[in-house]
Formats: sequence, C-alpha cells, structure tokens
Amino acid sequence: MKVCRRETFNAAHRLHNPNWSKEKNDEIFGLCNNPNYHGHNYVLEVWVDGAIDSDTGYVIDTKILKQLIKEEVVEPFDHRNLNLDVPEFKNLNPTAENISIVIWNKLRKRLPEKLSLMVRLYETERNIVEYDGK
Amino acid sequence: MKVCRRETFNAAHRLHNPNWSKEKNDEIFGLCNNPNYHGHNYVLEVWVDGAIDSDTGYVIDTKILKQLIKEEVVEPFDHRNLNLDVPEFKNLNPTAENISIVIWNKLRKRLPEKLSLMVRLYETERNIVEYDGK
Amino acid sequence: MKVCRRETFNAAHRLHNPNWSKEKNDEIFGLCNNPNYHGHNYVLEVWVDGAIDSDTGYVIDTKILKQLIKEEVVEPFDHRNLNLDVPEFKNLNPTAENISIVIWNKLRKRLPEKLSLMVRLYETERNIVEYDGK
Amino acid sequence: MKVCRRETFNAAHRLHNPNWSKEKNDEIFGLCNNPNYHGHNYVLEVWVDGAIDSDTGYVIDTKILKQLIKEEVVEPFDHRNLNLDVPEFKNLNPTAENISIVIWNKLRKRLPEKLSLMVRLYETERNIVEYDGK
Amino acid sequence: MKVCRRETFNAAHRLHNPNWSKEKNDEIFGLCNNPNYHGHNYVLEVWVDGAIDSDTGYVIDTKILKQLIKEEVVEPFDHRNLNLDVPEFKNLNPTAENISIVIWNKLRKRLPEKLSLMVRLYETERNIVEYDGK
Amino acid sequence: MKVCRRETFNAAHRLHNPNWSKEKNDEIFGLCNNPNYHGHNYVLEVWVDGAIDSDTGYVIDTKILKQLIKEEVVEPFDHRNLNLDVPEFKNLNPTAENISIVIWNKLRKRLPEKLSLMVRLYETERNIVEYDGK
Repeated sequence: MKVCRRETFNAAHRLHNPNWSKEKNDEIFGLCNNPNYHGHNYVLEVWVDGAIDSDTGYVIDTKILKQLIKEEVVEPFDHRNLNLDVPEFKNLNPTAENISIVIWNKLRKRLPEKLSLMVRLYETERNIVEYDGK
Repeated sequence: MKVCRRETFNAAHRLHNPNWSKEKNDEIFGLCNNPNYHGHNYVLEVWVDGAIDSDTGYVIDTKILKQLIKEEVVEPFDHRNLNLDVPEFKNLNPTAENISIVIWNKLRKRLPEKLSLMVRLYETERNIVEYDGK
Repeated sequence: MKVCRRETFNAAHRLHNPNWSKEKNDEIFGLCNNPNYHGHNYVLEVWVDGAIDSDTGYVIDTKILKQLIKEEVVEPFDHRNLNLDVPEFKNLNPTAENISIVIWNKLRKRLPEKLSLMVRLYETERNIVEYDGK
Repeated sequence: MKVCRRETFNAAHRLHNPNWSKEKNDEIFGLCNNPNYHGHNYVLEVWVDGAIDSDTGYVIDTKILKQLIKEEVVEPFDHRNLNLDVPEFKNLNPTAENISIVIWNKLRKRLPEKLSLMVRLYETERNIVEYDGK
Repeated sequence: MKVCRRETFNAAHRLHNPNWSKEKNDEIFGLCNNPNYHGHNYVLEVWVDGAIDSDTGYVIDTKILKQLIKEEVVEPFDHRNLNLDVPEFKNLNPTAENISIVIWNKLRKRLPEKLSLMVRLYETERNIVEYDGK
Repeated sequence: MKVCRRETFNAAHRLHNPNWSKEKNDEIFGLCNNPNYHGHNYVLEVWVDGAIDSDTGYVIDTKILKQLIKEEVVEPFDHRNLNLDVPEFKNLNPTAENISIVIWNKLRKRLPEKLSLMVRLYETERNIVEYDGK
C-alpha cells in the first residue's frame, strides 16, 4: 500500500558546470544557464510504501508526512535560491534529478526503515522526475 | 500494457477507532474525528494490466471498466456517508487506505483473472493512496 | 486590477428544505438529500478588485487574504458538517449558492470598503458558483 | 532515476475492425466507430529511466526528449487523421493501446539502449494507458 | 449569482472557407485545414446568472443544467464530425468561436428568460473562447 | 466574443522597495524579499474581446496571439531574472500586479484598437491577478 503527500515550493536556480567553459555551459544548459537565475514552482509528491497499521488504518498519517516535508524541504527550499541559499547545492548542479536525490536523502533519514520511499518532482507541468533511491 | 479509467464520488466520512478513548482519537485523527463527519470529492483511478486483444485493440474496453466502477463503487458510495451507509465500513475505519482496499476487493471479483488490478484514490489534491492487492 | 487567493476546505453537508415533505425533498434534491450527509472538497477563490498601492505594488497582500480566509472560512468550515457545525447554516440550506453568500458576507466585513469582492466556489470540478454581492 | 517530458497532439480517429460486420463494430466500438471520425486532445508522457550523468546532472536533457517527441510523434500525428494520414494505422486500429505501442516503438529506436522507456497516453481526462514494451 | 456546469465532448473538425483557394485556406488555417480532419476534447462551461430561489437555495439545479447540455450539446456533438454530422456547421466554419455561438443559441432557447447565459469553451488547454450573446 | 491564449514562462524575481529599510521590507514582503531571489512558473492567459470575422470565423487567430505573446513576453521574460534582466522592472517592483500591467501595456500596442484586452497571470496555483487596463 502506497501513500502520497503533495507539497509545493517556489525557488530560483541556475544550471551550471563550473568545470566547463562558458560556451560549453551555453551549449548544454542554454537559457537554464542564465547567470542571474530563473525559477520554478516545484511540485513535490512524496510516496511511502508499507503495511497498514490496524489501529489507525494508516500506512503513515499524512499530517506527519506533511510535517516532515515542511521541515526537510519546504522551510529550507521555499522562496530560496537553490544554488546560493541551500548548502546541498553548493557543489551540486540543481537539476530536477539532483534536487530529487537531495530530497530523497533528507526524507529517508526521517522515515522508519520499514517504509519504502519514492519522490516525484514536477519542475514544470512538462518536466517531471522520479527517484526511489536506486 | 496498462489501462486506466478515472471516476469520482462525493462522500462523508469520519475517522474513529472505537477501541480508543476520545482523547486518543482526538490526538491521532484530529479534525478527521469530528463526530458530525466531514467529506471529500474522491477521485478514483482504476488501472488494469494485461495483454491487448488483437480483435479489438483493447486490453479492456473502458466502457466496461466504467460500468463496473459504477456498479461497485459509484452507486454504493456516491453521496453517501461511508461510516453509516456503506456496510464494508461498519467495522472498518474509512481511511483512504481502507477505502482503496475495499474498492480493490470489490473490483477484483468482477475482473478476469488474467488482468492485474491497481487502484489509486485521491482523497484530496494532496493526499493519495495506491493499492494493488499486495 | 483584480487579485485572487485560492484556498480549500473539506466538509459534509445535506440539502434539505424542512418545509417540504420527504417526497418533495427526494424529488428536488435527490441523493443530495441523504439524511446521513455526503461531502465535498470545496475550492474557494476570493477575488478582490482595487487600485495598486504604489509602495508595495500590491492591491492586497495575498498573505493577508490567506489569513482572512483562514479565520473566516477554513477554520470554521474545514472538516466540519456544514448543517450541524456551522451556525450560519442552521436555518439555511447549504447549497453552493448559499455557502458562497455566507462566505462573501463574512469576508466583506473584514475588507476595506475601497476593495470590491467576488467569491467563486467549486463544489466539484463540474459545479461552480460565483457571487459578488449583487 | 526516471525523467518525463509531457507533450500534446490533437488528432481525429475511428475505431473499426474491417473483419467484422457493421453490427459487430457498432456493438463493440459504439460511438467510437462513427465513420466520419471523432477526435481527441491526446496528452503524452514519455518516461525514461537511467543513471544520472555526473557532468550534466541529467538522465537525459528534456530539450532532447522534447525534440525526439516532436520529430517522431507531434509532427506526424498532430492535426492529423490517425486512420488516414498516419501509415502505422493503415492496418492497425488506433485505440489508445495501439497508439502507445506505435509511439513506444518509434521512440525506442531513437534512445540509447541504456535508457528504459515507458509511455503514458491520456486519450481523455478519464481514459489513460501505459506501455513499457513488455 | 452565477452557476456553472462543466461538461465535455470529443469531436473531429476541419477549418475551411469554401470561398477561398486551397492556398488561402492553407495560409490562414494551416494544419487546421487538413482535409481528413483532426479533433479535440472540448471542455464546455455553461454559466447562468440569476436570483436564488429561496425554496431550493438554487439559481438553477445543476442536474437540470447537466440534462440540458446533454440533450443540446453532448448527444449531438460527442464522438461526431462537426463538419459532416452536425447540421449547424454545414455552412458554418467550426471554429471555437462559432461552436460557442451555436451552443449558446441552442441553450438560450431552453432556459427561462430571467436567467442570463454565458458559455466558455476550451478547445485545448491553451485555446479558450467565451460568448454571452452580445 | 472573447478569445484566450494560455502561455507559460519561468522566471526569478525578488519583491523589494528600495525606499524602505531592510526591516520594513522584511515585514511587508517576508520570504519574497530574499536578496538571492526565488522563482515561479508563471501561467499567462491573454484574453481579447471583439467581433468575429465572418471570413475566418475567428476573433483573432490564436496562432497570431501565440506569436505576439512569444515576442513580447516569453522571449524577454522566460528563464530570466525579472529584476535584473528585464528593463521594465529596473525601477518597478515585480509583483504579479505590476508584471500584469507591463504585459498588458506591451500587448496593447501590438493589437488592433477594436479588440479589448485583459491579462490573467497565475504566479502560483493559489495567487492570481487580472488586469484590463482600467
């Protein structure tokens, strides 16, 4: 049985590889390499998979999941510049893929081992990633 | 090949464990424990997985899936109070998890064995569950 | 210039006219007359119309609008039974139309006179009402 | 790690089995058998699964995925009659299932072998299929 | 007080002016001029504006509005070719604008005079029209 | 008759009044005042109101509207920092209200006088503004 909580955060970012020339960064990242940053309304779905607790009828209380996401993702990421304000991206390119790995790692530590975890991140309506730790 | 039909139903419910004190129910279920009930516009996705029939080009005709969902879910659940009007929840807490199990069990009996079944239930835009019988 | 804030609340309700017979209530309200209630995920859009403040660049700060809606609508309506738990509907049938009037009247008192007010209420994806006080 | 790009195309089609009588086609396909065709706004999600490239932080650049979908799906399918204008459906019934297989086969040839591929196709808000080549 | 009912229909169409050359049709209508037709999932919102009936708490029962839309729009338009199967478009180009006028005229005749009428038609997520008879 | 085209752009911005102290900016704009910027997926609806051309059946060809929006809004705003990269916001706080005014002014100059213009801008799913030049 899988349970999902959906939350959102709004952030600025820039895609850039400091080991590459300006030309190479332009070629690969295009507009996403704008040195003044651009931004997104990120939509995050956090899915956990586990057994139902017979006392509550819950796999996990979504109020608990909401609170975890708030502490680990919304508070540190929302209305921030991912490159400048979030330590995890100091040396990590904040692509949707890498953002989802950072989120997965942060949430994984906070969840009971018996629950599996998958995160789905919508950068836009048209660009989506999923990561389950593998 | 997987095929999905999406339907909706609107129902009242209350989360409550009769073996717990009022205080324990308040602590765990919070506002969802309101004795006068609250309600949701549930969105149900029914996914079946199987081989394509070469005559029709269908795994299953979604008109058939729609009719099954109507008989097994929409007619008995829509505009009902899940706790009071739906026998399956007389002794079962109507969390999204448990509702999805009840729906899966009802639909499983009506589908050919060769088709796998998964149900996804949106209680709100932000709270979602998935159940595939395991 | 119009500004909108969107919020949601989940509630149970029943449509019923106490001056009518059971048969008349059945005929007019159908399933919505279920004496055990049913429920919805209501989506509320609150639109205010006014001039931009040149210091802030805001007509109204949506954080203020969010707080007003929380106090006047979400806290008293969310996870409630509109008929039983919300005094305004003790003698008023909680149709989408009447809910929107109650919300409009509550918010109108809290907003500066210079701002016009319109509320749009989605009872479901398919049933929507708008009220601007006229 | 999975990455998805969402694109859309608008097309006419008709469901029909030329080996069946008119009566049998009517019975099975109903309105979808209209000889004058009907149509849909198809929504296509293309999901690829693979490892992150450490230089880019991408599994695949969604700009590349967008371009592939444009060449293989949007340009040949959009504003077309699937039965008459698209060679793949000359002898293949354009159900959502068969459309998804055709799309999967076209995209599979264009993607590196190390990336897995799944396509999800929304024929309407309520009818959805998924195909991953198995 | 305004009330809206949302319904959908799926249809094929072609944009074409028979008084123009093939070249002029190509230039103006582009892909929409495909002689083999293309199609859309049309989403229709029907808005009526009027006073609340104090007995029902309704401006109009949305079940009545749903039935009117079914008879006047969904049954004659859904799974049809607008150009070939719908008499109103025999000599009228089925642009979203003209479709909305045809729908407005059909519904206007069925509604009480005291209710105002507006229709909003989504041809795609990105192309929308509104018509209120003026 | 009104016609709408919906487009999107992704941008970074910061809300700030240079005439105010840091404390006043913090108090009024909160997280939106982050000196490192944050960002949004803006959704823009451009509505024009006018008569139908009897030759085309269009009020305005949405392909033309799409092109205008591309030139005036998407190309200069998308993947930009509104405060740093867009001259109109050099001395204008990029609130949703002010962005909608800038967009309206840019598009107004490009449209025939006989067409009325309204823009609706979604900063997030929950914060929306509308501006029609008055």
